[in-house]
Amino acid sequence: MSINFKDYVASVPDFPEVGVTFRDISPLMSDGEAYAAATDEIVAYAKDRGVEMIVGPEARGFIVGCPVAYKLGVGFAPARKKGKLPRPTVSASYGLEYGQSTLYMHKDAVKPGQRVLVTDDLLATGGTIAATIKMVEELGGIVVGTAFLIELNDLNGREKIKDYDIFKLMDY
Amino acid sequence: MSINFKDYVASVPDFPEVGVTFRDISPLMSDGEAYAAATDEIVAYAKDRGVEMIVGPEARGFIVGCPVAYKLGVGFAPARKKGKLPRPTVSASYGLEYGQSTLYMHKDAVKPGQRVLVTDDLLATGGTIAATIKMVEELGGIVVGTAFLIELNDLNGREKIKDYDIFKLMDY
Repeated sequence: MSINFKDYVASVPDFPEVGVTFRDISPLMSDGEAYAAATDEIVAYAKDRGVEMIVGPEARGFIVGCPVAYKLGVGFAPARKKGKLPRPTVSASYGLEYGQSTLYMHKDAVKPGQRVLVTDDLLATGGTIAATIKMVEELGGIVVGTAFLIELNDLNGREKIKDYDIFKLMDY
Repeated sequence: MSINFKDYVASVPDFPEVGVTFRDISPLMSDGEAYAAATDEIVAYAKDRGVEMIVGPEARGFIVGCPVAYKLGVGFAPARKKGKLPRPTVSASYGLEYGQSTLYMHKDAVKPGQRVLVTDDLLATGGTIAATIKMVEELGGIVVGTAFLIELNDLNGREKIKDYDIFKLMDY
């Protein structure tokens, strides 16, 4: 059976601010069949790339990456905001429209030489993913791919991660 | 093969404040074998309870619940902090040591009559879980169980959810 994943995306106008259309993937997550089908597609991609570890930024990156890690029998490591990780960390900052934000990973989250897939729900401006990739590489991991449910073409996040392979289920 | 899950918990003294020992489950998550084994135990529990939907509070509740949802072929719905969910929500507040916090779920996250498992990494004071349960029930869901990697006995969170079945992999 083939699923049209876009049937499970709620497009919400003017969120989080006027003029922005938010692509909400929660209907996809809350439908067991659609969630499993989306996960299976990323699993197939990850197998092709020889993935040994999944890393995802907080928090929707967890929803995408964790079932993939489980199915592959590999680990999952989160990239988190300030104050969430209790042990020694690396960090990377990225620009927002106003100001910047910083993500953190535990120093032992990725082993040197591990083949890492970075997951998130959306590829938007690419800032979060670029920061996550930077930390994985600082820890010695090899980013063999990135996987998203949705790519937002107009924001051109692809340009920020142009040295990396990109898998996505949908685009807008 | 039997795994001693406590081998994969990092106990961090004085985090997030002096006198508190933080039980960090990130080593368990980042080990593929341990993460899969922990997930499989919760999956077995969920099957026994006839679970049709998983709900977990942000953000570590996602890491625990999402692979369980995938394996069961059921959906996952997040309980999130303010400003994260773009569509109409229900909410529930819970007390913190100082002040209170509020969680939100989309109104269509759970269908009336659905048998729901609520997941998180830790059962501590129970405030987060009690708030999540309250929202699930407001939406008409039936909370058939709760599952945690760790129960912190001294905090007696069990008392706050005493009408519900509790599954945990470890306690301290």
